[in-house]
Amino acid sequence: MKIKLKKIAELIAGTVHGNEDVNISGVNSLDTAKPGEISFFADRRFKESLGITRASALIVSEINSIFKGPQVVVSNPGLAYARVAGLFSPPVPKHDGVSGLAVIHESSRTGKNVSIYPGVYIGKDCSVGDDSVLFPGVFIGDRVRIGRNTVIYPNVTVLQDCLIGNSVIIHSGTVIGSDGFGFVRDGAESVKVPQLGIVQIDDNVEIGANNCIDRAALGKTWIKSGVKTDNLVQIAHNVVIGENTIIVAQAGISGSVHVGREVIIGGQVGISDHVEIGDRVMIGSQSGVAKSVSPGDVVSGCPAMPHRLWLKTSGLITRMPQLNERLRNCERCIEELEKKLA
Amino acid sequence: MKIKLKKIAELIAGTVHGNEDVNISGVNSLDTAKPGEISFFADRRFKESLGITRASALIVSEINSIFKGPQVVVSNPGLAYARVAGLFSPPVPKHDGVSGLAVIHESSRTGKNVSIYPGVYIGKDCSVGDDSVLFPGVFIGDRVRIGRNTVIYPNVTVLQDCLIGNSVIIHSGTVIGSDGFGFVRDGAESVKVPQLGIVQIDDNVEIGANNCIDRAALGKTWIKSGVKTDNLVQIAHNVVIGENTIIVAQAGISGSVHVGREVIIGGQVGISDHVEIGDRVMIGSQSGVAKSVSPGDVVSGCPAMPHRLWLKTSGLITRMPQLNERLRNCERCIEELEKKLA
Amino acid sequence: MKIKLKKIAELIAGTVHGNEDVNISGVNSLDTAKPGEISFFADRRFKESLGITRASALIVSEINSIFKGPQVVVSNPGLAYARVAGLFSPPVPKHDGVSGLAVIHESSRTGKNVSIYPGVYIGKDCSVGDDSVLFPGVFIGDRVRIGRNTVIYPNVTVLQDCLIGNSVIIHSGTVIGSDGFGFVRDGAESVKVPQLGIVQIDDNVEIGANNCIDRAALGKTWIKSGVKTDNLVQIAHNVVIGENTIIVAQAGISGSVHVGREVIIGGQVGISDHVEIGDRVMIGSQSGVAKSVSPGDVVSGCPAMPHRLWLKTSGLITRMPQLNERLRNCERCIEELEKKLA
Repeated sequence: MKIKLKKIAELIAGTVHGNEDVNISGVNSLDTAKPGEISFFADRRFKESLGITRASALIVSEINSIFKGPQVVVSNPGLAYARVAGLFSPPVPKHDGVSGLAVIHESSRTGKNVSIYPGVYIGKDCSVGDDSVLFPGVFIGDRVRIGRNTVIYPNVTVLQDCLIGNSVIIHSGTVIGSDGFGFVRDGAESVKVPQLGIVQIDDNVEIGANNCIDRAALGKTWIKSGVKTDNLVQIAHNVVIGENTIIVAQAGISGSVHVGREVIIGGQVGISDHVEIGDRVMIGSQSGVAKSVSPGDVVSGCPAMPHRLWLKTSGLITRMPQLNERLRNCERCIEELEKKLA
Repeated sequence: MKIKLKKIAELIAGTVHGNEDVNISGVNSLDTAKPGEISFFADRRFKESLGITRASALIVSEINSIFKGPQVVVSNPGLAYARVAGLFSPPVPKHDGVSGLAVIHESSRTGKNVSIYPGVYIGKDCSVGDDSVLFPGVFIGDRVRIGRNTVIYPNVTVLQDCLIGNSVIIHSGTVIGSDGFGFVRDGAESVKVPQLGIVQIDDNVEIGANNCIDRAALGKTWIKSGVKTDNLVQIAHNVVIGENTIIVAQAGISGSVHVGREVIIGGQVGISDHVEIGDRVMIGSQSGVAKSVSPGDVVSGCPAMPHRLWLKTSGLITRMPQLNERLRNCERCIEELEKKLA
Repeated sequence: MKIKLKKIAELIAGTVHGNEDVNISGVNSLDTAKPGEISFFADRRFKESLGITRASALIVSEINSIFKGPQVVVSNPGLAYARVAGLFSPPVPKHDGVSGLAVIHESSRTGKNVSIYPGVYIGKDCSVGDDSVLFPGVFIGDRVRIGRNTVIYPNVTVLQDCLIGNSVIIHSGTVIGSDGFGFVRDGAESVKVPQLGIVQIDDNVEIGANNCIDRAALGKTWIKSGVKTDNLVQIAHNVVIGENTIIVAQAGISGSVHVGREVIIGGQVGISDHVEIGDRVMIGSQSGVAKSVSPGDVVSGCPAMPHRLWLKTSGLITRMPQLNERLRNCERCIEELEKKLA
């Protein structure tokens, strides 16, 4: 596929400096671009690559004099790159219609233009919306509803009664709707608290690989629209994740935590149960959050503290042997002073 | 399904105050209960909900005057709730018998009333006990024995020779019996140490989603009866987990660790290899345990320390910049004192 | 199977002291060995077991006088054990040829002596090399190439265009080639950056269970030969892992990190994006690595610091209440000294 640079510039509302009739056949990084490909320059760390790139055009935030080919100026080159890469991105590979080797209960309905691969299992009274794709090994429990244009990758499990919205992507190995971890002690033994709720995933959510999102004890665990999770994320029962929040790999959110909208939760973060995380909070990677965090706050560390405090504190942690030595020195000096005064 | 309050009170050994002939059709939280449902009140934080709940009856530890309907008094409302919720919990959805779309080696035996879904694979010389359920995508390796009344959810892998007890629940995506992580260096290269042992899971164990429980190098990795694990838990080769121990999400237990009975291991905890964790120990979330812990101890932090010490220490960590400032101040004062005395 | 001790000694270049004609039928630990089995003694902690073991022969680094049977002296008993255990290790259980219940696109090729179980799915234009084994529930996307003698355990997902080398082992539930976690903010919303690259796994790599290895945004995520990963490991897009590096369970490597060769990354370690980890670095478990680490360095802690410093620092962390008390004491003494001098 070849697209004229002019067309690309229109898509990203950019201004072309140079030949706008160049044909572009793909995107690539500065270092690895071949003739015919477009690249982008947004990070000054890669300035050296500008002189040697073989790309046929560049997306930039401002014209530079090192690159000699045509340049498209935009306000946000990263965002523009994402949109241009989308043009050249291969479509999700589809099975042609509903495979005869899928097992679908007769009470379930599939929409127009769905792609259901061999080895899919769909239980009773389910619905799968138009244009959705279910890959091999996907299990869909009874009464699950899946919206339009949703892609569920291989070996994903969605258990009974869960709701999956439109334009959702769920990556391989993820489990939606397993039982929340609820037990009550009866002497030494643990009695299971039945997990009677569901998981609801709203539109435009993307869930990474090998995530676990547990069904609610009662009511619903709720992933609101636009949320993106990385791989190996744990979301416990009755958690609510607000719109457009981002959760990086291996983070764990305990039961009944409410996370606001547009929050960023770093990798390997742990959040204790029943905590409230306000809108637009940022939580640094590996933090341990045991208390609620106010909207807009930036926290880090274990225990989590204001990020600026963590920067000071973590620097001091590595200097603790010196602190200890200085303290010992003070003690010695004081002893001598006391002797002199006695 | 409707059950008279009187019947429910009998099940949980409670005393009814008010109309014991009310029909109950379900359980719910105070806030979301509809007429006909029973709720429970155990946590004073939710006192405000008592006045507005639409529940038709309550389980309580002591009579309160705000709620006007019938109340069932029990010593442990949480436990009573779990038992009542069990009455209304839908049964595990079963496939009717052994699916013709499952692949089961002719040498393997299945008990009475088993439910084996399409897409299950069972190897040679296996046995599956009465009333057990195997969901689609479950792989059972050669010579695996599975007890009675056990449920294995979709896409679980149980590798050769492992033993699964009675009334066990294994959630989706979990892997039982993959090779332990054992290598010996030969120069720069790692030579694999064959993992010749098995995993044994005893009765009444519940394993969360996407867990990994590795087979022993020799002998067995052993999960004793009543153990409950949350999601994404790692249990390495030759680990022994004692009866009724609870392991919260994303915890990792290294090779040959012995964990006692009724231990509680918090989320994202790491335990180093060959460590002994005594009976009834509690380990706070995100702790790093590198040394053995005596029975009954409560530890937290990284490095793990007595929990009370960790509370003090973690408070001081956030005040390290002040400590540093105070130390600097001492140094200055001492210098001045020394000058004066000179 | 029985093998004469003499043969075993030859395999491991050891010297037999005692009867070299003993028949050996298996390996076991000192404590659990039965007559006919060989064991090994390398760790002085297990010295007590020497007197009571029922093993018929021992592999040792030097002759000991407690064990009365034949002993094979080698320079590295651990390595020798691994090789001898390999003799008695059962082969990977194979399905006889290509199952008629596997779904394989007609454009894909499988080599000689492959074992493809029922329930495998292989897309278009793939190749599977001689002697490789694909277990049930394995998904192979379009254009994937798999080398010779490679074993892919149940319910593994390998997505389109990825390259898997020779003699690779991938344990159950692992996902290779899911999309890297790349988004660009457009106001509150996250726009997906298409992930156009692949994952390349070189020869002799072993990947643990439930790992996630994401495809590159552009180019490749690259796991070089001899790398071994434990379970639940996260490897993000564009990461490069050098030859023979070892990654312990639940570690997470962020995007574009370059890890050198023969590195050891401990359990639950987190490494921030774009960091460089030099050859032969060792990173202690649970460390948080936010900066590049020079070749040969040993680091621990969060923030990661030289391991020796971490040993001191972590010791001082548990003594922070005393440090605080000592500091308070200094302040009091200084105040008194100042009063006296005034």
